[in-house]
Amino acid sequence: MSERLVVIGGDAAGMSAASQARRLKKPAELEIVAFERGSFTSYSACGIPYWVSGAVPERDDLIARTPEEHRARDIDLRMRTEVTEIDPAGRRVRARDLDSGAEGWTAYDKLVIATGARPLRPPLPGIDAPGVHGVQNLGDGQALLDTLEATEGRRAVVVGAGYIGLEMAEALLRRGYEVTVVNRGEQPMSTLDPDMGRLVDAAMSGMGVTMVNDTEVTAVLTGDDGRARAVATKDAEFPADVVVLGIGVEPETELARAAGLPVGEHGGLLTDLSMRVRGPVADGAIWAGGDCVEVLDLVWGRERHIALGTHANKHGQVIGANVGGGYATFPGVVGTAVSKVCDLEIARTGLREKDARAAGLQYVTVTIESTSRAGYYPGAAPMTVKMLAERRTGRLLGTQIVGREGAGKRVDVAAVALTAGMTVEQMTALDLGYAPPYSPVWDPVLVAARKATAAVRAA
Amino acid sequence: MSERLVVIGGDAAGMSAASQARRLKKPAELEIVAFERGSFTSYSACGIPYWVSGAVPERDDLIARTPEEHRARDIDLRMRTEVTEIDPAGRRVRARDLDSGAEGWTAYDKLVIATGARPLRPPLPGIDAPGVHGVQNLGDGQALLDTLEATEGRRAVVVGAGYIGLEMAEALLRRGYEVTVVNRGEQPMSTLDPDMGRLVDAAMSGMGVTMVNDTEVTAVLTGDDGRARAVATKDAEFPADVVVLGIGVEPETELARAAGLPVGEHGGLLTDLSMRVRGPVADGAIWAGGDCVEVLDLVWGRERHIALGTHANKHGQVIGANVGGGYATFPGVVGTAVSKVCDLEIARTGLREKDARAAGLQYVTVTIESTSRAGYYPGAAPMTVKMLAERRTGRLLGTQIVGREGAGKRVDVAAVALTAGMTVEQMTALDLGYAPPYSPVWDPVLVAARKATAAVRAA
Repeated sequence: MSERLVVIGGDAAGMSAASQARRLKKPAELEIVAFERGSFTSYSACGIPYWVSGAVPERDDLIARTPEEHRARDIDLRMRTEVTEIDPAGRRVRARDLDSGAEGWTAYDKLVIATGARPLRPPLPGIDAPGVHGVQNLGDGQALLDTLEATEGRRAVVVGAGYIGLEMAEALLRRGYEVTVVNRGEQPMSTLDPDMGRLVDAAMSGMGVTMVNDTEVTAVLTGDDGRARAVATKDAEFPADVVVLGIGVEPETELARAAGLPVGEHGGLLTDLSMRVRGPVADGAIWAGGDCVEVLDLVWGRERHIALGTHANKHGQVIGANVGGGYATFPGVVGTAVSKVCDLEIARTGLREKDARAAGLQYVTVTIESTSRAGYYPGAAPMTVKMLAERRTGRLLGTQIVGREGAGKRVDVAAVALTAGMTVEQMTALDLGYAPPYSPVWDPVLVAARKATAAVRAA
Repeated sequence: MSERLVVIGGDAAGMSAASQARRLKKPAELEIVAFERGSFTSYSACGIPYWVSGAVPERDDLIARTPEEHRARDIDLRMRTEVTEIDPAGRRVRARDLDSGAEGWTAYDKLVIATGARPLRPPLPGIDAPGVHGVQNLGDGQALLDTLEATEGRRAVVVGAGYIGLEMAEALLRRGYEVTVVNRGEQPMSTLDPDMGRLVDAAMSGMGVTMVNDTEVTAVLTGDDGRARAVATKDAEFPADVVVLGIGVEPETELARAAGLPVGEHGGLLTDLSMRVRGPVADGAIWAGGDCVEVLDLVWGRERHIALGTHANKHGQVIGANVGGGYATFPGVVGTAVSKVCDLEIARTGLREKDARAAGLQYVTVTIESTSRAGYYPGAAPMTVKMLAERRTGRLLGTQIVGREGAGKRVDVAAVALTAGMTVEQMTALDLGYAPPYSPVWDPVLVAARKATAAVRAA
């Protein structure tokens, strides 16, 4: 007897789940229906800044798998079809064809919610004016490129200084714009501690980006033609031929909430470790993954909302295994993120100081300077590594790195050590790869771990 | 009452130990005497190929700390002074000034043996002829550079295809030589499995190096002037204006063995976890570290000899802490190594297939192809990742990577996972840094871990 799996959302989590389930179950055993309200499937939103910059030539380069490719794998994919209601008691969803307007119910035995996240868009005057662009999906990217094409002026204002804001600042720099980043926080990259964020601030300024921190945008000012002409703050106006919003996202869970499914304090769906939505309403038949869920932070010990393609893909794999009759779990995250802005590499994992305090943890913190290669080797680039360790136990709590080439991915060592619950003293003995083109004889992460070990002993 | 620490060997392990001990104990508490038979201290032997290639301009760039700098830190350093005997019962060493010939005994309360390793030099006809060079120390490097300077011909033969041999091949290529590598093994890099070694072989050939594998050198042939003119094997002669030996090293432990100290099956000194030499002869007063000791392989569960500067530095730190009245241990290694030859990156950690068999382990193995960056991101370079996991338990046993820029240091993730005893299935959930310039959405190491997980389930 055949079952039906319904998937809401055709990007990373949803289509990974569908594909993995299809690998495990033949069409005769499991029918798979997927609804996507947009025009694209399985694309890399993370790649949009590089498409805008011109580094990635074509939009389709960002598409990992097209609707046709999914259909060829026996997934009944309905594009431009929006799910408007979930009826968990009736085990069915209502969907509307956005072109024809036709609407109808589809029954499910198992449901995957992968509705993603939506960009924050504060209700400011002028925020919807032509010339103001988000960069959440491929349509947004195309709209921005169209504006850049049509605009003669060369002044760009980016609102927000998280990784998307900074990557967009680079993209616009590369296209020859004068770029101003207007940022609510005291430093860019609020995912770092302020001292590390200041390093990013200095580096961005060094690249020629005008950084305006600690400033709230009050309006987008428009010209006689109705188009955005400047970004206004309480104290100033920043002329803009184009405005890019990079102020973060929130889980897209209205549909799920309307159905009575449980969401956490960040608005994301709450699941168990197999990515099955918790509680009696879901009744064990609904899974969720990707940017619409909250995930367990293994260091903090509570749920967080982290919108990242790599997590979405993992969730999809886990869901697909479980709905396909296998077994897999997603144990949680440690909060790893890396970004690259021109030649600046920015990385973090685990807790910041304020996170540790909020988590009730006492900690020591150290910061060291080192280089990406042996000091004598050509191209050795400086990097700063900050490390947090728990007081008394010495357990690693977090690591932040700001540097140049070769800095960013070093955070992976700390990410694995965090996952394993290592102390900073245990880390000092880690057998990391050493050769002069790759590292000083003491890897920068080990230098930080040594200093943190001493700090724990002294605390 | 003051104690005296005597250190034999003025490079990484010995001088790290001396320096760390000095940090912990003032001269009034601890006198430190160090003997070095050569003319340099604390230098990077690993950097010699880059000095020979010209990438590192000056010999002194490779010296981390000069004799004068050590003396300024209240270490009584005796250069060009060779220890000729250790008398553990009398707690004294006999040393000879190589210039004056003066010889005498120095008493110790604590002794550190850091005599390093010596290059293997098979007893072949012509092996000592002018024009044949090892690259073990700075003197060797200078002698080779002098030969290159004085030689008109442009044909170089490198004997040995381990990481030193291949790095020297690159150095000579960069200097404009026609380079032939003569290798006893079937593939270069015997620290890799043969299938991965073949990738290195192909890449080396692609760079224009003539790779001659599976061939034993029978002699170095000399000309009328007594200088090396060719390297002979059973079947062929390879004309050579210069010959470089890169055939590995063995622990330099004659002195220690003559004193009755215990060595392992690879000829290295055997220590406890605090790096103190085992057994009644040492009587708890002798420590050893660096290239002259064997270290515990945490995956294999037995001692191995691994000559690497990064280990030597760690040993020195641990010894210095312990002889300085603190406490530290060196738990062992997992066998991580990275090399770079032109733009080829080669990395390994843990066990090869033949090691796993020798260790009595049953395993599965998988090999995957991936890229260093998102496929659409400029500069995405291919890499091959091989992974071994234990049958049934799924515990990671080893990882080998061959690729281009961005491949090598990825092995660190596997090194930490090995140290933590993770299974490949646990690894699939690792929260590694993702952004398009750094990685595909599934990091290559995770792709390998996923495939290995499936292989473990199927085995």
